[in-house]
Amino acid sequence: MTDKSAPGETLLFADSEKNADMLYFGGVFVPDPFIALTLGPRKVAVVNQLEFARVRKESAFDEVLSLEEWTARARQETGGEFRFPASVVVALAKAFGVASFRVADDFPAGLAFALQEAEISLEIVEGGLFPEREFKGDAEAALIRQGNAASAAGFRAAERLLREAEIRKGVLDHGGMRLTSERVQEAIAVACLEKGAVAANTIVAGGDQACDPHCRGTGPLRADSLIIIDIFPRVAKTGYHGDMTRTYLKGRPSEAQRALYATVLEAEQMALGEHRSGKSGAKIHREVVRFFGDRGYETRRDGGVPTGFIHGLGHGLGLEVHEPPRVNPSGARLRKGQVITVEPGLYYPGLGGVRVEDVVRVRSGEPELLSKHPYRWRFR
Amino acid sequence: MTDKSAPGETLLFADSEKNADMLYFGGVFVPDPFIALTLGPRKVAVVNQLEFARVRKESAFDEVLSLEEWTARARQETGGEFRFPASVVVALAKAFGVASFRVADDFPAGLAFALQEAEISLEIVEGGLFPEREFKGDAEAALIRQGNAASAAGFRAAERLLREAEIRKGVLDHGGMRLTSERVQEAIAVACLEKGAVAANTIVAGGDQACDPHCRGTGPLRADSLIIIDIFPRVAKTGYHGDMTRTYLKGRPSEAQRALYATVLEAEQMALGEHRSGKSGAKIHREVVRFFGDRGYETRRDGGVPTGFIHGLGHGLGLEVHEPPRVNPSGARLRKGQVITVEPGLYYPGLGGVRVEDVVRVRSGEPELLSKHPYRWRFR
Repeated sequence: MTDKSAPGETLLFADSEKNADMLYFGGVFVPDPFIALTLGPRKVAVVNQLEFARVRKESAFDEVLSLEEWTARARQETGGEFRFPASVVVALAKAFGVASFRVADDFPAGLAFALQEAEISLEIVEGGLFPEREFKGDAEAALIRQGNAASAAGFRAAERLLREAEIRKGVLDHGGMRLTSERVQEAIAVACLEKGAVAANTIVAGGDQACDPHCRGTGPLRADSLIIIDIFPRVAKTGYHGDMTRTYLKGRPSEAQRALYATVLEAEQMALGEHRSGKSGAKIHREVVRFFGDRGYETRRDGGVPTGFIHGLGHGLGLEVHEPPRVNPSGARLRKGQVITVEPGLYYPGLGGVRVEDVVRVRSGEPELLSKHPYRWRFR
Repeated sequence: MTDKSAPGETLLFADSEKNADMLYFGGVFVPDPFIALTLGPRKVAVVNQLEFARVRKESAFDEVLSLEEWTARARQETGGEFRFPASVVVALAKAFGVASFRVADDFPAGLAFALQEAEISLEIVEGGLFPEREFKGDAEAALIRQGNAASAAGFRAAERLLREAEIRKGVLDHGGMRLTSERVQEAIAVACLEKGAVAANTIVAGGDQACDPHCRGTGPLRADSLIIIDIFPRVAKTGYHGDMTRTYLKGRPSEAQRALYATVLEAEQMALGEHRSGKSGAKIHREVVRFFGDRGYETRRDGGVPTGFIHGLGHGLGLEVHEPPRVNPSGARLRKGQVITVEPGLYYPGLGGVRVEDVVRVRSGEPELLSKHPYRWRFR
């Protein structure tokens, strides 16, 4: 406990339910914020007596220190000036000879200012505390597949409802009751649970609701109307997410709806294959924009409302639903191991929206597909 | 847009799925971090085009600004030095004449340092950005009741399984399969979903697993063994939580288990009534410790393992599962409107654990109970 580490150790103060860096670092769920740091090659956590035994047993930490002991020590050193957690970090820094810490962009400012007052210097790490989180090995790819298997179970549950639904005066009925976005969301959540995953904020948005890509959808679903379903569940045991989207229609599609669906699906299938290491994300995005434009689907503001392909083509996926990299007009070159959603969409109020989304892992050749579910979209 | 506001406006940069202050401030779910601030009495959000229409329609913000427009403006002002989101905040501060911001303790340090470099001063607000979050009016109390109604639905689902279970060689069977913690957790999650709530990290912990109050529980449940079930679901539409605990036993309790259960329940019922404005939380906690001691239940380390009443008596509940105040050895005086869990527990490896938890709102007289579910605990 008296070895002197090099400066520039990594410091975190967060819970690992919400903070993906902390979960990645320690590999254990702790619901309240706690101190974790590197000391040379060792990963160290400081937790209270309620967490101590479990973190010691289940985590990736090499050393688990008692918060009660270190708090007592810090109280002695600071006298009446004790402040949690800053004084504990200061006591640790002193004991282990650390003069400066690397911290994440989202490190809490209150603690950061308190450490600076105590003359501990902090370096904000741009672009993520653990840039290696962006590159997934086979074990992580398998966990993301598991998340997508939950998404697929959700689609099956939704499709069952759409298949069984009846059309009454233009709206969908199931089991004698209106079939609403909320009922479909619930059926999806139950199906995900059976796969050990929590599906929060699932989108089941029909008609013009779907033209706002962050609208979750609400109320009765209508016949002959496009319905976007976007399911991004988190596997409870691992923290990894799936993220897939399909679009459906119950009833009879118009020619315009048919063409919109076919165009988006074709764009998606084309874009999936383009996710190869070395290729620029911005270029892949632009290719999709051009493809849509060639088919007559422009992206522009229409009476102040953005229409067309109004969002980025994709984003990294892992312990967070949205993580680096982004594939959009300012996207960088793709690199091997990145796991990325591919989700082109077209949105025109009046006609509706279509989005289709799968997940790939980037390789030098043909990308590896980490999601799997048919593209059946019409239910009569 | 040219009025000059007083310094000391409030600034947030967070998403409102995870950050309770942001949800409280804006009253709308936005999945990615965005800028929000006060300008005098007005609440202002800066969001991208995907969120713009929805936030304008659904939120409590008085004004919604376009992120694209303010980004363009900030790029012009900074030239090549543009950094998101700091440059946008600087542009806003300049335009509205704000020289300093109040920020929360958990405001992101990266942005904080960048603002300081731009000579915008920041004041970290100790004890919460919105201290009024601690005091709940009738509307919020109703939302917490709704969360607890989901918890109660979860208990009913768990009790159904325990009632129907059969004992085979000391372990519980249901429907021809082992009844595990995981199966009970899933049934609880489904029951909560039917109430519109997401129950993550539900604890269903039997035997010695329950002696670690943060262990979620895993594997087969055993007969004649105490089982702690702690359900703290979040209502999806509102973000408010319930938080309740019950303890069960399938089979025949020993005298020691019976006494442990009766003692904890008596302590809980007594403590519920003590939550009145003006009374010290520390004192209520100590009364429970003394009550347990008088009955022969000591709190101490036993071979390095903490045993007895090893956690605080309760915590605030609302948009977060754990929020101020805390009722523990350093708890302050209670104040009217606080919503607090009351959850005494006793844990002795070998014997097992018991915890019973309800939720009260503090008033000057008899506290208002915000949770409701019977205390039936034995299933034969």
